[in-house]
Amino acid sequence: MNREIYFDNSSTTRPYDEVVEYISSVYREFYGNPSSLHRKGIEAEKLVKNARSQIMNSLETEKGQVYFTSGGTESNNLAILGYLKANRRAGRHVVTSKIEHPSVLEIFKYLVSEGYKTDFVDVDKSGIIDLEKFRSVLTDETVLVSIMMVNNETGAIQPIEEIAEIMRFKSPKAKLHVDAIQAYGKLRINPEYTGISLMSISSHKIHGPKGVGALYTAPGVKLSPIMYGGGQENALRSGTENVPGICGFGLASEITFRNMDENRQKVQRIKDKLAASIKESIKDAVIISPEKSSPYILNISFPGVKAEVLLHHLEQKGIFVSTGSACSSRKNIRSHVLQAMGLPGDIIDGSIRMSFSSFNEEEEVLPVVSALEEIVPKITTRR
Amino acid sequence: MNREIYFDNSSTTRPYDEVVEYISSVYREFYGNPSSLHRKGIEAEKLVKNARSQIMNSLETEKGQVYFTSGGTESNNLAILGYLKANRRAGRHVVTSKIEHPSVLEIFKYLVSEGYKTDFVDVDKSGIIDLEKFRSVLTDETVLVSIMMVNNETGAIQPIEEIAEIMRFKSPKAKLHVDAIQAYGKLRINPEYTGISLMSISSHKIHGPKGVGALYTAPGVKLSPIMYGGGQENALRSGTENVPGICGFGLASEITFRNMDENRQKVQRIKDKLAASIKESIKDAVIISPEKSSPYILNISFPGVKAEVLLHHLEQKGIFVSTGSACSSRKNIRSHVLQAMGLPGDIIDGSIRMSFSSFNEEEEVLPVVSALEEIVPKITTRR
Repeated sequence: MNREIYFDNSSTTRPYDEVVEYISSVYREFYGNPSSLHRKGIEAEKLVKNARSQIMNSLETEKGQVYFTSGGTESNNLAILGYLKANRRAGRHVVTSKIEHPSVLEIFKYLVSEGYKTDFVDVDKSGIIDLEKFRSVLTDETVLVSIMMVNNETGAIQPIEEIAEIMRFKSPKAKLHVDAIQAYGKLRINPEYTGISLMSISSHKIHGPKGVGALYTAPGVKLSPIMYGGGQENALRSGTENVPGICGFGLASEITFRNMDENRQKVQRIKDKLAASIKESIKDAVIISPEKSSPYILNISFPGVKAEVLLHHLEQKGIFVSTGSACSSRKNIRSHVLQAMGLPGDIIDGSIRMSFSSFNEEEEVLPVVSALEEIVPKITTRR
Repeated sequence: MNREIYFDNSSTTRPYDEVVEYISSVYREFYGNPSSLHRKGIEAEKLVKNARSQIMNSLETEKGQVYFTSGGTESNNLAILGYLKANRRAGRHVVTSKIEHPSVLEIFKYLVSEGYKTDFVDVDKSGIIDLEKFRSVLTDETVLVSIMMVNNETGAIQPIEEIAEIMRFKSPKAKLHVDAIQAYGKLRINPEYTGISLMSISSHKIHGPKGVGALYTAPGVKLSPIMYGGGQENALRSGTENVPGICGFGLASEITFRNMDENRQKVQRIKDKLAASIKESIKDAVIISPEKSSPYILNISFPGVKAEVLLHHLEQKGIFVSTGSACSSRKNIRSHVLQAMGLPGDIIDGSIRMSFSSFNEEEEVLPVVSALEEIVPKITTRR
């Protein structure tokens, strides 16, 4: 097998060719600083404005604001730290879940050290927020809730609408922040309709450039900056705008949303076929992704196998997958997500994540299944 | 006159063609996430490592670390806020100057609001730090000093070595942060030799991509992150690395430093010729940049002229300059730098900044002087 099969699209994606070309042309022709008063500045500013519209369009709303950041991590930090900083008197109770991305969990750990009252809500066996537990921790003092829309390791889709609904009753003054980094461009999201006050998105997960993200804020949501400087992005995000990156993000968003339904169906077929074929050929395999999960992510475990060993055998055949998320894979610690789901150690240790994009094809399923059929029996400790 | 003359290189520069091509090729061929365990991750990580070496080489040291950030503003924030956060018990007195970039000044204003004892040291008439005043504010309690190497509006070169020397005697435990954003790639800088603990640099000022910068830290200097997440960049700067941007920065640095002396001589000739020709043709013109200033920046004033009006007349002729810095030009407020120099209002209001790069040519001087000769008498209120 010669062709590479890249099933690690939740780590990062290959950018669209059109996006790479657009970025290059912006670098060459529109290199001005949007803060400059002359034409080269105005041109650059227009390009940023256009990209902002492309992002707003994708959110199906005309209300609220989109602020560009350096990526999903910064968006999460700006949302949570920036909101709490701007609303210091609102209260000191904040809520998240046990299965968030490190860029939310680590912020909450910092908040604990700063004296915030913090709840990390449990998930059920399928990796979905336990709504009863969620309801029980909310109080009048709750100011901010941060829950991801799609879990990056399992693809589990979280019940954001129900969460917003529960908040309206139990903590009407609390705001909802949603880390939508694995959902954006994959599910339809309308923050206005859903009741989302703050939403983080990232460019490089949707075939856009790395180093760019955005934070959506609903009308009336006040934030303080987390960095200080020249006052760009309406004084919320200082620093010369990354014009080519922002343009690339805007275009990637437009292309992605134009083909979203079609892409989802294609990817769903890949995931379904892959899951079914693996289950058929490798009886021990355990599908970890729940039924209600993103078609873009299949987490599957081969108990008795060390996932990292499997990953390296697969890459020798030109197949690229992930153990857990890219962010934590280097740390050689057991996935906090799979642990929160209460999975046994051998299932956690044997779990790999295969994540798809519209660049994948159904034809890629068969070689992956064949590779697994060949490798898994060789490396398993189960006989 | 058809050809554009871009004399606004301190706002931002056009990237090198080689850099744009390299970025594109990284996007197309090396799109992996450096945190991924497989080959595509390793390849991307190697590219980042290579760029880090390119930056370290430019600093002529093997000691210390380079951390990549989203740009100069973030580098300044990480340096100052990150240092103070990691060294909370060291003391509460911090020192800067009145002529820093907003990304330092605004941090210091925030520190004032957080209860830090803060000194903003004066400059002399030429815009250079008053070393006697600097000496007089330093105490045993001083923990951090932040002084820029080259002022972005006037080009004034600050006496960093003397500052470091004074600190060694008066505040031996204080660390020196240098905003070297307008100096990097233009002056030789050896942070180790100079006694710099923290140094901020930016890519888009040296024909590299926007949205990338770096912070140099000397050995033993402890920082806390200002954003939380996956723990990239040695846990100091979380977020998926902007691999193509980082690669572009590394290459831009290598090209810039390879030709630094030659470029400086070329740019010095442009600046000298421009200053002399303007003084010759427009008698009222006042050169604001001091003798000891970067060859890359010429700040010159036409008293009786509104700088913004002049800027727009020049751009109609395809000549791009700046009023003050790009960052503050949109705010329509008088330059804090020129005010700190004690300049009268009409000189401040008539001041434009022309800033050069190796892409400029001596042949561009004459058309700029001719344009000024034509425009200034038309728009001046002095008769």
